[in-house]
Amino acid sequence: MQPPPHPTTTIFRHASQVLTLAGSPYPRAGQAMSELGILADATIVVDDGRIAWIGAHAHLDPKPFRDTQEIDCRGKTLMPAFVDSHTHLVWGGDRKDELEMRLAGQDYEAILAAGGGILSSVRQTRAATEQDLVAQCRTRIERMRRMGTTTFEIKSGYGLDLDTEMRQLHAIRRLSKEGFRVRATCLAAHAVPQEARASNAARSDFVDVVAHEILPAVAKENLADYCDVFCDRGAFTFEESCRVLEAAQQLGFGIRVHAHEFGHTDGVKVATRYHAASADHLLYLNDGERASLREAEVVATLLPGTSLVLGKPFADGRALVDSGVAVAVATDCNPGSCGLENLALVLALACYGCRLSPAEAICATTHNAAASLGYAGEVGRLEVGMSGDILILDTADYRDLVYHAGSPLVQEVYASGARVR
Amino acid sequence: MQPPPHPTTTIFRHASQVLTLAGSPYPRAGQAMSELGILADATIVVDDGRIAWIGAHAHLDPKPFRDTQEIDCRGKTLMPAFVDSHTHLVWGGDRKDELEMRLAGQDYEAILAAGGGILSSVRQTRAATEQDLVAQCRTRIERMRRMGTTTFEIKSGYGLDLDTEMRQLHAIRRLSKEGFRVRATCLAAHAVPQEARASNAARSDFVDVVAHEILPAVAKENLADYCDVFCDRGAFTFEESCRVLEAAQQLGFGIRVHAHEFGHTDGVKVATRYHAASADHLLYLNDGERASLREAEVVATLLPGTSLVLGKPFADGRALVDSGVAVAVATDCNPGSCGLENLALVLALACYGCRLSPAEAICATTHNAAASLGYAGEVGRLEVGMSGDILILDTADYRDLVYHAGSPLVQEVYASGARVR
Repeated sequence: MQPPPHPTTTIFRHASQVLTLAGSPYPRAGQAMSELGILADATIVVDDGRIAWIGAHAHLDPKPFRDTQEIDCRGKTLMPAFVDSHTHLVWGGDRKDELEMRLAGQDYEAILAAGGGILSSVRQTRAATEQDLVAQCRTRIERMRRMGTTTFEIKSGYGLDLDTEMRQLHAIRRLSKEGFRVRATCLAAHAVPQEARASNAARSDFVDVVAHEILPAVAKENLADYCDVFCDRGAFTFEESCRVLEAAQQLGFGIRVHAHEFGHTDGVKVATRYHAASADHLLYLNDGERASLREAEVVATLLPGTSLVLGKPFADGRALVDSGVAVAVATDCNPGSCGLENLALVLALACYGCRLSPAEAICATTHNAAASLGYAGEVGRLEVGMSGDILILDTADYRDLVYHAGSPLVQEVYASGARVR
Repeated sequence: MQPPPHPTTTIFRHASQVLTLAGSPYPRAGQAMSELGILADATIVVDDGRIAWIGAHAHLDPKPFRDTQEIDCRGKTLMPAFVDSHTHLVWGGDRKDELEMRLAGQDYEAILAAGGGILSSVRQTRAATEQDLVAQCRTRIERMRRMGTTTFEIKSGYGLDLDTEMRQLHAIRRLSKEGFRVRATCLAAHAVPQEARASNAARSDFVDVVAHEILPAVAKENLADYCDVFCDRGAFTFEESCRVLEAAQQLGFGIRVHAHEFGHTDGVKVATRYHAASADHLLYLNDGERASLREAEVVATLLPGTSLVLGKPFADGRALVDSGVAVAVATDCNPGSCGLENLALVLALACYGCRLSPAEAICATTHNAAASLGYAGEVGRLEVGMSGDILILDTADYRDLVYHAGSPLVQEVYASGARVR
């Protein structure tokens, strides 16, 4: 017997709530973040992977659609699938022993200064084959997709040498070719590697290697969309960050910056100078810095999971939104400072820790994150023409994502119209 | 065709790690909390709902067991199912609007003083039928069981009058009769009800009603195992708490106390005076209070989800463990100050917030919680004779519960040997 032809059209019928985020500026800033464009008793038609119709169910004319499967969404909420705009998902080994050291009282920056932290992952990643890196990263991506994230930004940065940075980026490229929606970022300036810590000259040479060997090689093979630099206490100075980003800009990379995670340093200055798509972490900011992020239209990407895991303060998301900045929220998933994979949970932490409202946190983990990755026309909203990246929540009230944080409310996940299993 | 007879024996074979917590004092205090009694490549046989055999797989002689189903646990961790020893799962309505008010900056104690908070749930619970309360609570319990919790303590306390307190406790009794493992606690002294706030005399009369009408009526129908009182700023004083617990003790109830959540008040003094099984919250303690909890063998039950949700400090679990106190960790799941249902997540918060080690947090959410409920001989450890309440974790390293907090690592849940779906 022949199996029935696979339906190309899916009708999500009668959802109690649909969070469309329709009609957005790219990205949304300030008060506009709380406008979710909620439809009641609404239906979405996904045809050939894209949203073909969306509106109040009463207005649906189903006749134009053939070979359809129908999903009854009564009592459910439909929303855009999550976009995780800051991850370090390609790594070798793990740092669980370090987790226990930190819980026993050791400080993250002290562990890093002693050759652990990022440098521990560098040793383990340098020792891993590309095949290992791909396999481990695929497992992580698949787990995160089942939790509702269908778009990822993934950074290199556990190589800190040409070979390993390229191997990480090749691994990301392979996963992208397998059909995962991924933006790749070269973060060769993630930390000063052990071998460059002996002298100021060695350190300066490393910055040159990043700017004039690694980035050009990455550009030549078109392996990354963005270049990121960790401008902070214990990482790279303003001047070093500028040397890297100057080269990155000339090579045509988009810019992202790790900024103000450990101290009140120059990250925002770097981000605005190079028109970064995103400045990330932002635990220590003053009013002037918030204003300059707003004026430069840099997305402020908050990573509250990392604050929780490291026992640091939470970024003041409320002040950023109230200052008119566009805020995104991401997991920062990495082997050391934050292993959280569940962006729905991190969304709730952005409320409890960073004082976003549930609606703002939804915008921050969908549309605004997508916009910071140049995907605002593809995912992060539910409108005709957008990709069918949709979550079915097992609740009629999206605020349950925060109220019952950590409960398995993401019931079904669709990426480009296909169910993720 | 006849279905095959239902097997009465389940063999969980070849688990990479089995956390037995074997050979425990009841409960475990201080350093002993980190001894998980881990077996490698181990097998558990559950026969007729109880653990019949446990040990290294190489020593298993499978012949004595018939009608068995076998579960391959290679690459997995087996551990005792979670015990949630502090919940308020029977409530009417919800308080999601209040969640948004708090995130916008309003203080929980101020909301309570203005007639919201607990008093809002009191109004909604008084308006609910027993049938409604049972149905809503059953939904919550079933969701929590799928996340790994098979034993519950449930408090009344949203009635604050005889009828509604009894209705809440009858609802708990009905759920218990349906086969859920539940300890019931009468928390009629949860807050001073609106109608008793007009004068000191009215307030004193309410304490009398709790001590001399509600508790005797509860005792007569044997509806509760424990009596709890909220001794704190904005709730009940030392003297009022003593009047309630004096009566409770004479009626034969076990004692639990809400203590030191909002201020440095007299909760520990109350808990030690009445030999409480547990003192809960404990955000503000000094060395002398920790010593008196240890000496009186009161379990310190930490509720880090509530600290996260209310933006309060986390209890200092590290200091409690280092002082030799027995620590438990629970969700506090309730309609207002913490709606978290996922005890695996709260376990991770106890590490990140309260500075327990992953091993201590496992003990705190299994054996120690069970011991605080008088269930230490039934659940919370994996030993011959204990109930078959077992989790299969989708990892070979239990520390992933903390490292990847919020990921769906609880793959299968067994309660009394039967799979929870």
